[in-house]
Amino acid sequence: MSPPGRPQGERRRAQHEGSAASPLAISFGDIEAAAARLQGVAQRTPVLTSASADARTGARVFFKAENLQRMGAFKFRGAYNALARFSPAQRERGVIAYSSGNHAQAIALAARILGLPSVIVMPQDAPAAKLAATRGYQQGQRGSEVVLYDRYTEDREALGARLAAERGMTLIPPYDHADVMAGQGTAALELIEQVGPLDRLLVCVGGGGLIAGCAVAARHRCPGIEITGVEPEAGDDTRQSLARGEIVHIATPQTIADGAQTQHSGRLTFPVIQRLVREVVTVSDAQLVATMRFFAERMKQVVEPTGCLAAAALLEGVVQAPGQRVGVIISGGNVDLARYAGLIA
Amino acid sequence: MSPPGRPQGERRRAQHEGSAASPLAISFGDIEAAAARLQGVAQRTPVLTSASADARTGARVFFKAENLQRMGAFKFRGAYNALARFSPAQRERGVIAYSSGNHAQAIALAARILGLPSVIVMPQDAPAAKLAATRGYQQGQRGSEVVLYDRYTEDREALGARLAAERGMTLIPPYDHADVMAGQGTAALELIEQVGPLDRLLVCVGGGGLIAGCAVAARHRCPGIEITGVEPEAGDDTRQSLARGEIVHIATPQTIADGAQTQHSGRLTFPVIQRLVREVVTVSDAQLVATMRFFAERMKQVVEPTGCLAAAALLEGVVQAPGQRVGVIISGGNVDLARYAGLIA
Repeated sequence: MSPPGRPQGERRRAQHEGSAASPLAISFGDIEAAAARLQGVAQRTPVLTSASADARTGARVFFKAENLQRMGAFKFRGAYNALARFSPAQRERGVIAYSSGNHAQAIALAARILGLPSVIVMPQDAPAAKLAATRGYQQGQRGSEVVLYDRYTEDREALGARLAAERGMTLIPPYDHADVMAGQGTAALELIEQVGPLDRLLVCVGGGGLIAGCAVAARHRCPGIEITGVEPEAGDDTRQSLARGEIVHIATPQTIADGAQTQHSGRLTFPVIQRLVREVVTVSDAQLVATMRFFAERMKQVVEPTGCLAAAALLEGVVQAPGQRVGVIISGGNVDLARYAGLIA
Repeated sequence: MSPPGRPQGERRRAQHEGSAASPLAISFGDIEAAAARLQGVAQRTPVLTSASADARTGARVFFKAENLQRMGAFKFRGAYNALARFSPAQRERGVIAYSSGNHAQAIALAARILGLPSVIVMPQDAPAAKLAATRGYQQGQRGSEVVLYDRYTEDREALGARLAAERGMTLIPPYDHADVMAGQGTAALELIEQVGPLDRLLVCVGGGGLIAGCAVAARHRCPGIEITGVEPEAGDDTRQSLARGEIVHIATPQTIADGAQTQHSGRLTFPVIQRLVREVVTVSDAQLVATMRFFAERMKQVVEPTGCLAAAALLEGVVQAPGQRVGVIISGGNVDLARYAGLIA
């Protein structure tokens, strides 16, 4: 059932959770290997605590500050892990990626660090700061460019696949890729190394790469941990998918959480979520704004709307966890300053 | 010359810097003792780095994030250290403090932690967030209150002294007090413990408590370190004082750096600055705004205008330090959200 060489805890759990299930796309060993690749390249981001957050929730809350990750979001972890595994031939041709923002910057930066060309397919209405940052990371890197598309009429996956075929580049999707998922899981691995065992972990859900990786890491380290996913109210495709037992596709959701405007979870991420995630809850845009203000006022952190999802569920009372040790992933901090100022004012 | 019992390094340096000088108000031993008192009470704040800051300055820059200190500023260190040294009789009567903001909150919070009453004298035009936070910290603490005054017509020191005499409370001034200075010095002590030796340390200057404490700590740990103070352009009293060789008094400066609207450095802080600080430079309000934006956009940190002083001198090129390992104290992050949004928009 489990491939040989998996650590014993992993095997035990897989059996406990139903030995008839097919193996998941990633194992704990993949996350450990990703952590070794990221050592000295990614930031070991700090864990922040807040007396206000603890008082408000009755929990002991540990915020993993991935807004302080390189390029401002956890996405660097998965992107670098994927590119670091390229063969020499793949490195020569380069990487192509489609993304609503942070994955684009992450691929562009990881490609520059590893010295390979990158083509990034981004929506025309992506935040200006993300477009500018992506182009900045590509500067001076041979064969690198940004290609824009209309997210309401064009299919970015098809566009990305076509460009990849034309140019011989390797397409790295934003979430549905084992190396990307394993890289993202290092965020939870680090968090538990930094603060010890947790009773619960709250993670935002877009396409599911972060929560899938984090669930594998956290359930291996703390077998009893409850993993809770958090989606924007307008884009609750994963919650619907869990209820229906299959991947549900929705129209591009209209929410300020631009990093979670995904239409469906992935063929690789969804089975992990099904097996390891206890529940997926949703928060409103108003709750995201309240949480952005909380982060700015009480914790002095600039957090983008998507980065507030997990925290909002806890701070706004959607999830109750009195007496628990709770981990919360702050997924990123990339937001146009003018837009940010408008939201918190 | 030096009191017996001072560590040897301290004695050597005192001699090197002129053995005829009278002893300074604090020794390195006082800072070590303060660090022991603050252990487990104050946050050991993280040190942040930024590839953008390094690229822009050519230095390796280590930002000590005291905006993530309890109550949002370094002031908690000095306030708690001073109150922790109260006698039982002093604890019974309580503490009185005057402050443009952060010292007030720091004293109020430290008093609550130690279970003693606090009276805080604050300017009428102090930021609303600071007034509200101070009252919040006092809530439920017997005999605690906020007293307001007009900072352009009234003398807060005289008012504080009168109230202290009337109520038998101990007045803890915001900077000119040995225990306060020693507490503030723990910020630099920690920074050097966290990142190793530094070539230069940049510290904001209001009344001089932070830079005096940090200078004693840093020069003890790294005898060759250059300490640079940074004042707002409109309030360069310490720079004037160094030039003139005596404490210069100025009118209350008009600057967005509300934590550095001091009229003069202290009788205890100035001799330390004279002996251990290489130079004091100034930055404009526009440079502070540019630095606030840099912190928000690149480092995802909310930093109040005063907290940007030290960083602004380096990032805006007032101080050049190519190839150096530079420590920068981010002194605090307490700023009304509406005002903050207006400044960064």
